[in-house]
Amino acid sequence: MALVVQKFGGTSVADPDRMRTVADHVARCRRRGDDVVLVISAMGKETDELLRMAEDVSSVRPGREMDMLITAGERKACALMCMALADADVPARSFTGSQAGFLTDTNHRNAKILEITPDRVQESIAEGVVPVVAGSQGVSTERDVTFLGRGGSDTTAVALAHTLGAELCELYTDVSGVFSADPRVVPMASKMTSITFDELLEMTATGCPKPAMRSVEVAHNYEVPLHIRSAFTWEPGTLVVQEETAVEQPIIRAVTHDVSESKVTVADVDDRPGVSAKLFRALADGGVNVDMIVQNVSDDGCTDISFTVPTEDLTAASSILESDEISQLGSKGVSTDESIGKVSIVGAGMKSNPGVAATMFETLANNDINIEMISTSAIRVSCVIAADKAEEAVVLLHSAFGLDRA
Amino acid sequence: MALVVQKFGGTSVADPDRMRTVADHVARCRRRGDDVVLVISAMGKETDELLRMAEDVSSVRPGREMDMLITAGERKACALMCMALADADVPARSFTGSQAGFLTDTNHRNAKILEITPDRVQESIAEGVVPVVAGSQGVSTERDVTFLGRGGSDTTAVALAHTLGAELCELYTDVSGVFSADPRVVPMASKMTSITFDELLEMTATGCPKPAMRSVEVAHNYEVPLHIRSAFTWEPGTLVVQEETAVEQPIIRAVTHDVSESKVTVADVDDRPGVSAKLFRALADGGVNVDMIVQNVSDDGCTDISFTVPTEDLTAASSILESDEISQLGSKGVSTDESIGKVSIVGAGMKSNPGVAATMFETLANNDINIEMISTSAIRVSCVIAADKAEEAVVLLHSAFGLDRA
Repeated sequence: MALVVQKFGGTSVADPDRMRTVADHVARCRRRGDDVVLVISAMGKETDELLRMAEDVSSVRPGREMDMLITAGERKACALMCMALADADVPARSFTGSQAGFLTDTNHRNAKILEITPDRVQESIAEGVVPVVAGSQGVSTERDVTFLGRGGSDTTAVALAHTLGAELCELYTDVSGVFSADPRVVPMASKMTSITFDELLEMTATGCPKPAMRSVEVAHNYEVPLHIRSAFTWEPGTLVVQEETAVEQPIIRAVTHDVSESKVTVADVDDRPGVSAKLFRALADGGVNVDMIVQNVSDDGCTDISFTVPTEDLTAASSILESDEISQLGSKGVSTDESIGKVSIVGAGMKSNPGVAATMFETLANNDINIEMISTSAIRVSCVIAADKAEEAVVLLHSAFGLDRA
Repeated sequence: MALVVQKFGGTSVADPDRMRTVADHVARCRRRGDDVVLVISAMGKETDELLRMAEDVSSVRPGREMDMLITAGERKACALMCMALADADVPARSFTGSQAGFLTDTNHRNAKILEITPDRVQESIAEGVVPVVAGSQGVSTERDVTFLGRGGSDTTAVALAHTLGAELCELYTDVSGVFSADPRVVPMASKMTSITFDELLEMTATGCPKPAMRSVEVAHNYEVPLHIRSAFTWEPGTLVVQEETAVEQPIIRAVTHDVSESKVTVADVDDRPGVSAKLFRALADGGVNVDMIVQNVSDDGCTDISFTVPTEDLTAASSILESDEISQLGSKGVSTDESIGKVSIVGAGMKSNPGVAATMFETLANNDINIEMISTSAIRVSCVIAADKAEEAVVLLHSAFGLDRA
C-alpha cells in the first residue's frame, strides 16, 4: 500500500468522458490498495479561453485579477472530478490551492511556492477520502489568489508529493513518456524506460515540452520519484530516477530542439570587467529571460557578446540594449536574428566519453549546417543553427548517436 | 458623497461589451463623488451551463462540490469586471465571498449568511479602490466554499450594504423596475416609482421574479434603502421605502401571478389537534416547501386540508403523504392538481379599505373563473384558480383595481 500523487493535465480531463475514465482509473488504483491524491489542471483549452476572454474585455489586465480569473478553471475541473469519482463510488473532496495549504509569494501569474501546510489534504487521506487538489494555484502572503504559471500543475503535484512523503508522483499526460527526440520530427525516436533527473532537466531546458521544467527542478531537489505516463493508453511510461543503475548505458540519451528563441549579438563592447554584469543585470531587471550566453574573447580590446532570449522577449531586450546606460559600454551595434534553432544532445554518459561534442559538430558540418553558437554542460551540448535546419539536425544527430529504434 | 452598493445581474455583465458599459457607469458615479462597491453575478447563462456540465459528468453531485463548481462563475465575472474597470481608469480589486468576509452555515447549494466581516472590502474603499465582490458565495464554518442559491447575489448586495452602512443598495437588472403586473401579460402595467418593503415582499412571495425574495427580507429587516433599476436604459427605477409618504395612494399596487405550483388535497382527515402539525412537520422534514395552506372546518368530525407546493416538490410530497405515519391520520385519500395558477393582489392600502377581497372575488366570478383556494394577509389576497385562466385573471384584476396606465 503506497501513497501516490497523480497529476492529470488538461487533455486528460478535457470532457465528461475523460473525467469518468480518470475516475475509473483512480477507483482501480484504490482497489489495488494505494492511497491516491489527485492534482488536476483546467479542462482542455479552458486556460486559453479565459485568457482570450480577458483580452476581449480589457487592454489593462492586472496580475491579481488575471490570477483570480485563470484559477477558476482548475476549481471547476476539481469539483467535476469529485463528482465523477462519487459516481465511481470513490469518496472525494476538492481543494483549491489555498485550501490545500499552498502559500506563495505575491508574484502574480508566475508565483513561487513558499510553503505547503497540507493539513486538510492529510485529514482527507486519513479518512479514506481522495483529495482532489487544484493545480498551479495558491494563496499569497497578501491573502490573494495566485497562479503558478503555465505547466504549474506539474509543480503542484511534485511539491505536494514531497510534502506528503508520497512514494511516487505520476504525471499523466497526452504522451506516453519521455522520448529520445520529438517523435513528430524523428519517427525513429523511442520512449525511454527511465532517465535521470539531470538528463530530464537538461532536456526540458532545451525544448522537451513535458513535464514542466520547474517541476523537474523540484523533483530533483527533493528526490521525488517521478513517472511520466499516458492518461490515454495507461501503459508504463518513463521513470525518472536519481542515478542510472544499468552497467551499460548509451552515451547520449536524447536529442532536443527549440525554435522559440532569438539570438541577440552586442558587437564590439569593451573587453573589461563588469561589462557583462551591467548588460545582463539590465536585461534581468527588465524581465528578459536570457538563455545561452557566448562571449568571444578578442585581441583588440573589444569583444562580441551573443545570447538567446525567447522571441516574445526580443522587443523588450532590444529597447533595453538601446538605452543610454548600455550604449555607454561602447558597443558598435546590436543585431538580432529571429530565425534560429537550438539543437541539443543530452546524456549523462558523455561525462566519461570524450569526443561527443566533436561528433556532434562533425555531423552538422558534414551536412552543411553552420553552427552559430555553442554552449555545453557536463551532460549536454547545445548548438544554435538556422531555424529551418533544426529538424534536419535532430534527425541526423538522433541517427549519429545510435538512438534510432532497432 | 455617498457609499453605494451596486449589484449587477448575469444579463448586465453577459459579455465584454456589457462589462465595459458597467465599468463606464461606475466611472461616472465616482466622478460624481460617490464611493461604489460592486457585487457581480456570473455572466449570462454561465450558472446554467455549469449545472449542465455537472449533469454530463456524474449522476452523483455532492453539494460541497456543486458549490465549488458554481462559484467559479462569479469569480470569473469579478476578475473580468476589475479588468474592465482598470481599462476605464478605475482602480478595482476583486473579492471572493470568503475574501469579502461572508461566513455562512454549511447548508451547501443554499447557504445562509451567519456573519460578515468585510475588513478587506473596507480597506479597499478607504484606499479609493472599488471592491468587486463575487455574489451569492461565502465560506462555511467548516472552511468550505458555499453558494447562497439562485438569486443570491441580491442577498449578498443587500447584506453587504447593511454591514458597510451604505446609503443605498442599487440592484441593476434587465427590467427597469417593479411593475404593477408582469408587462408581458398586462401591456397596461406600469412601473412603480416607489413601493414599501411589505408590499414588495408580498409581491416577490407571490410570483414577482425580481429581486430575489430573500434579499427583500434582509433589506426589510435592516431597513436598507433599495433601488431596483435597469442596467440597460439606466433610467430611474423603483425605490423601496419603509413607508409610503404620499397622502393619496392606490389601494392596490400590483397584481402578481405564479403557475409554478401544484395543489395537494388531503381529504377527510380527523379534525383533532395535532393532525396538521404532524402533516406539515413530515413535509418540512422531507424538504418540501409548502406555500398556501387552507383547511376547511367540517361538521362530521373530519376536515379537508389543501396546500400548494412547488410542482418540482410534488413527487416528494406525494410519497411522504403515502407513508404509514401520515396514513394513520385517517385520510380518505390524497389528490393532486398540477394545473393551478395563483393570482394575488398586493397593496398596503387595502388595510384601511374594506371590500377589496370582495371586489377581487366578484371580478373573477363575473368572468366565470372558479376560485379553488383563498389565502390572505394584511396587504395581500391570493386566489388559486385554473392555470389556464391565470393570465386572463391578471389582466382583469389589473383593470378592476384601476392600475391600467392612464
